[in-house]
Amino acid sequence: MVVSKAWTLRQHFQGFPKASDFHLREETLPQPKNGQVLLEAVFLSVDPYMRPYSQTMMKEGDVMIGSQVAKVIQSYNPSFPVGCHVVSDCGWRSHWVCDGAELTPVLPDWPQDIPLSLALGAIGMPGLTALYGLEEVCEIKKGETLLVNAAAGAVGSVVGQIAKIKGCRVVGCAGTDTKVSYLKELGFDQVFNYKTATSLEESLREAAPHGYDCYFENVGGKFSSVVMPQMREYGRIAVCGSISMYNDTTPQTGPYVHTYMIFKQLRMEGFLCARWKNKHQQSLRRLMAWMTEGKLRCNEHITIGFNNMPAAFMGMLQGDNTGKAVVKTLEDCCSPSIFRWWDSPPGGVLVMEKNDGEESPGATGGEGDGRDTTPVHNTGTPDGMAALGVMLQGFMLNQQQSMQQQQQSMQQAMQSMQQQMQQQISQLQEEVQKGKTKQQCVVTPLPAANPDTLTRPAPQSRDPAEEVLGEHVDKKEEAAEMVRHNYIRRKGPKKVSHYVI
Amino acid sequence: MVVSKAWTLRQHFQGFPKASDFHLREETLPQPKNGQVLLEAVFLSVDPYMRPYSQTMMKEGDVMIGSQVAKVIQSYNPSFPVGCHVVSDCGWRSHWVCDGAELTPVLPDWPQDIPLSLALGAIGMPGLTALYGLEEVCEIKKGETLLVNAAAGAVGSVVGQIAKIKGCRVVGCAGTDTKVSYLKELGFDQVFNYKTATSLEESLREAAPHGYDCYFENVGGKFSSVVMPQMREYGRIAVCGSISMYNDTTPQTGPYVHTYMIFKQLRMEGFLCARWKNKHQQSLRRLMAWMTEGKLRCNEHITIGFNNMPAAFMGMLQGDNTGKAVVKTLEDCCSPSIFRWWDSPPGGVLVMEKNDGEESPGATGGEGDGRDTTPVHNTGTPDGMAALGVMLQGFMLNQQQSMQQQQQSMQQAMQSMQQQMQQQISQLQEEVQKGKTKQQCVVTPLPAANPDTLTRPAPQSRDPAEEVLGEHVDKKEEAAEMVRHNYIRRKGPKKVSHYVI
Repeated sequence: MVVSKAWTLRQHFQGFPKASDFHLREETLPQPKNGQVLLEAVFLSVDPYMRPYSQTMMKEGDVMIGSQVAKVIQSYNPSFPVGCHVVSDCGWRSHWVCDGAELTPVLPDWPQDIPLSLALGAIGMPGLTALYGLEEVCEIKKGETLLVNAAAGAVGSVVGQIAKIKGCRVVGCAGTDTKVSYLKELGFDQVFNYKTATSLEESLREAAPHGYDCYFENVGGKFSSVVMPQMREYGRIAVCGSISMYNDTTPQTGPYVHTYMIFKQLRMEGFLCARWKNKHQQSLRRLMAWMTEGKLRCNEHITIGFNNMPAAFMGMLQGDNTGKAVVKTLEDCCSPSIFRWWDSPPGGVLVMEKNDGEESPGATGGEGDGRDTTPVHNTGTPDGMAALGVMLQGFMLNQQQSMQQQQQSMQQAMQSMQQQMQQQISQLQEEVQKGKTKQQCVVTPLPAANPDTLTRPAPQSRDPAEEVLGEHVDKKEEAAEMVRHNYIRRKGPKKVSHYVI
Repeated sequence: MVVSKAWTLRQHFQGFPKASDFHLREETLPQPKNGQVLLEAVFLSVDPYMRPYSQTMMKEGDVMIGSQVAKVIQSYNPSFPVGCHVVSDCGWRSHWVCDGAELTPVLPDWPQDIPLSLALGAIGMPGLTALYGLEEVCEIKKGETLLVNAAAGAVGSVVGQIAKIKGCRVVGCAGTDTKVSYLKELGFDQVFNYKTATSLEESLREAAPHGYDCYFENVGGKFSSVVMPQMREYGRIAVCGSISMYNDTTPQTGPYVHTYMIFKQLRMEGFLCARWKNKHQQSLRRLMAWMTEGKLRCNEHITIGFNNMPAAFMGMLQGDNTGKAVVKTLEDCCSPSIFRWWDSPPGGVLVMEKNDGEESPGATGGEGDGRDTTPVHNTGTPDGMAALGVMLQGFMLNQQQSMQQQQQSMQQAMQSMQQQMQQQISQLQEEVQKGKTKQQCVVTPLPAANPDTLTRPAPQSRDPAEEVLGEHVDKKEEAAEMVRHNYIRRKGPKKVSHYVI
């Protein structure tokens, strides 16, 4: 059993979220059973949708909704071997026990030089959202003019780039001059700062005098009312978000859109990317291909420390981020992991050990490309394979029939792991020759997590391993701090540069 | 040359239209040339869309937009022989000269017992609008629940019936108890009077506790705001009209819909039926088939007299009509046509003559089924054929090449006419045996047209035939009056009954 941390909704947000609306609690996780895995969060996503979702779909006390890139640190499911990375929708939790049905492995051939955090961004839900919004909802065609607002956000920045790939003219709006510069660098045709523009209406008209064929809506509210008259006949509006409205205490009102809808025969459609989940794998590969070809670039706004989830969320809601807002847990960034535990799964014994004494990049600079490359984080370490073998024997005693199926999927996973390892080896060899790429970090101290918001479960008897883990988590969170690092992958493969705001 | 009457927009409407916003003018039409026809209005349509269209697409002094069923009374285009009926978009005009490109012939096999006025209603633009809104926009499926408002209107009443044909559950809203009764009779599952309902929200919820899959929007404004929260996931909204907003002097405002759109993944689409014009003929046949099978029934609200176009239009806007609002010109209803003219088209001589002394149904009751069945109104009279033959010779002298094409289309038209005639003969024979169906009319005197609103063009030299026609038109309009007659074709073919409000 493991003690996890989880951020809950202490009370429903009234207007803009406050720190006191969140509550950090510890929860004792059940011991993983056959078919289950224990996850450890590596990157956690903060996204605008969480704000309205909390209002309509959550009750007070629920764990905040959200996705994360997690590492499998204990596994009784051969499809998800120890060390592999998955995307999980388990919410704002540091650890979680679940079965494979709720997990999506990151692409098996994820390139070494692309941060895994992008599985929450351009090569994840926001990237898919951008792609589906353009292809499935807007059905955008070459030569058309697209408007996207909140264009420097996780979704908006991908929207504009995909539209450019498709041969469209792209107009983007953002709320700071820095974001405007960033979007111009990404290749947007016209970008302006809607906060400093004298007239949004005029700026939109100047940017596209003949109007807009497609409008990728991330903002809603009054912004949308200004756009409607500038839509062209048969215009399509993909309603992805309405961040300007999420914190309203009374609903904003604006002119009804019916007349424009009818006489211009506009189509407006709200969507969630899960609608096309049967296409996800194929779509992620397309996004990854654009990324490796240098056609799709991205920026991330990374906050360090699980304790800072609320701060990262609130910062994102007020537009602090240029690109995807992500939280990186301390375990993966600023300190070596010093923990060890053992457990006795049914049908086998799994022992994992991580070497102490690894180099610490320290608090002022993280080395690497934003991805922890210590062996324990890679899929398919020799130790992990041996443990799987032991576990396999245990399963065979009791579950021969189901084992055959699992074997097959495991064989596939193994093959995939082998390929990945070989790739990683080649890439590492290449990197060794070239010298390691540096990543710059600026560390901004944040207020420490409020001890009042931290509650613990009633003391229970723990085994020594769990206590070590619990202690480890506490120690890390006390030194909460935020790092912002940003990078743009430039056109052409294998060329990475890093931006610091 | 012929003097026509036309209603123009004297000044843009401010709020609800007033009689003084319209202007009745006479205009001298040019002499039809080769390829052209002279039309005489039989039924004219008044529709909600005219109100917003006037605001955005017309300038003061323009003839009011609109469709009509017109009779070809002079023809130099073999595709539209004298006596045939066409649908023309020439606006609020008593007569018009145009070429065939702007005309749509009514279905060639139009049944004798179905009024031609339905070519402006259930078997015309409103019927097509209902069909396309459900099939193309809503993509409605069997078993789904549909909401339609303004349900007793020209479009709404057809929407509900088609949805029933498709196996859907239909909820309709209307503004009078009479309309509610009418819709129940048409087979709507749930109908309520939204004007007398204590709470629209509750009435909608009671009518469909699980919400609405499809919403056929004819009303817009606050009504739509109440519906949005009751849409089901993946709901579709066909935005056909927004009659509650057309007379606003300042735009109505309401809560933005983005949040519902996103989290319920709703699709909202405005449309005009012309988008699917390549399907019109096929679709009209489907509507006609439902009509003759008794699956589609309709009511018409008929105002008599071209002079009463504005009154009919304003009445429709304030919801006087149950079913399609149509204006019937006096020529076809209350008096025999007594006119004769001749003209010399290039390349031939066309002479047409209509027998005097036909029975007049008088002003208090129109006999027949709402369709003038005097021979001159039927397509392909022997006189018309002879005249066409003469005209054909003239054409051949000068235009042999283009004639070949025209010949082909004429042959088709002729074949179609022959078929129609044979059908009519059979039907008439049947009717003679059964005895004629009576149609009841109530005549309500209306104020005579304001002489101030009537201007005439500067006197020009006319030939005697034109003067006779002009005189005839004037005489009819002086006795302006309104007749309302309504009929519902009951289930099962050949059974017609008539309702009087």
